[in-house]
Amino acid sequence: MPTIEQAREWYTTADVVHDFDHVLRVYRTAEHLAEIEGADLQIVRAAALLHDAEGAAPGAGSTRANHQHASAGFAAQVLTEEGWPVERIAAVQHCIRAHRYRDNSEPPNTLEAKILFDADKLDVLGAVGAARVIAYATLDGNPFYYPPSEKFLHNGEEEPGEPHSAYHEHLFKLRKVGGRMFTLTAKAMAAERLAYLDAFFERLITEWQGEL
Amino acid sequence: MPTIEQAREWYTTADVVHDFDHVLRVYRTAEHLAEIEGADLQIVRAAALLHDAEGAAPGAGSTRANHQHASAGFAAQVLTEEGWPVERIAAVQHCIRAHRYRDNSEPPNTLEAKILFDADKLDVLGAVGAARVIAYATLDGNPFYYPPSEKFLHNGEEEPGEPHSAYHEHLFKLRKVGGRMFTLTAKAMAAERLAYLDAFFERLITEWQGEL
Repeated sequence: MPTIEQAREWYTTADVVHDFDHVLRVYRTAEHLAEIEGADLQIVRAAALLHDAEGAAPGAGSTRANHQHASAGFAAQVLTEEGWPVERIAAVQHCIRAHRYRDNSEPPNTLEAKILFDADKLDVLGAVGAARVIAYATLDGNPFYYPPSEKFLHNGEEEPGEPHSAYHEHLFKLRKVGGRMFTLTAKAMAAERLAYLDAFFERLITEWQGEL
Repeated sequence: MPTIEQAREWYTTADVVHDFDHVLRVYRTAEHLAEIEGADLQIVRAAALLHDAEGAAPGAGSTRANHQHASAGFAAQVLTEEGWPVERIAAVQHCIRAHRYRDNSEPPNTLEAKILFDADKLDVLGAVGAARVIAYATLDGNPFYYPPSEKFLHNGEEEPGEPHSAYHEHLFKLRKVGGRMFTLTAKAMAAERLAYLDAFFERLITEWQGEL
């Protein structure tokens, strides 16, 4: 089993939002879900530590669009060197390939893969989600709040000159994440974290008016 | 009286955290305080719009350490052109010079100056304060959370390699701001906003462990 200290070495090139802190949070959340849902902890832990490690793969430079394949390849290399049996390596690889499931990509078919998917998505909600979405907006030169236009509220497209603020990302993307969870435990956590995130932005807007 | 649209022009060079959004929030919060505390609204509004406008002053490039003097000079220029009486210009200038009051600098002596000081400081607390401190940390390449060392908790100095995370800034600086407010209305708002900010970081740390 790779250790956390070993894993830290694989993430030296990550950006500030997909950094090793994100990996550690996904690792702990996935462990928490695995314990409650009765999943194979060793598979879940290895998959969580390796799920974004494409930067450590030989010939790194994969785009984020297909990074799960590079990470899965790197995982096979690491776990083969550790002497893991092929079927357990395949189980970890499935988790990693399916953690970015969208239309036309490999869906999570095992409990362990569903847990990695859910833990990765939970990290965009709650207070951590607020911090990440603000950090992303800042890196893109966008404000954390800008009043969304009617057009944006209607179809998610900004008017000319309308910045994609952290609040825009919240409305357009984060609010939909809860509906994509697989496990019951993660669904409940997502609902609670989303309620917090909604309240955070509501409060931010009230303060913005100078009235709280 | 300068308009908000006029004021927007003075802030084109500001950084992402001391941007025009900050000025607008201080403006609205100062208005809110002025109404409750019975201050001269026109003085407070002009001072709020001009308080960080040093970038618009001729020969701009003042350091933030003494920016209040450049902003006060620019305010005199703008308000003289508008035909304000000298004693009211002086009242606005006093607000601006005193809004960054520290030891050995000019303290706020009028209700209007106390209100500008308080409104400016309130902007580092609450959900807005959380967003700003995270944006600052991101711009400096620091994480939003890192467990503070015993040394930091004791004297506010980081161990070698310990990043000054947003949480560090919260513990070391933001938690002390409430004690510096002048008006009773701002003291109450600061206490409520600080409680929110404390709870935000507490929650963020719990989520960090994967247990919420």
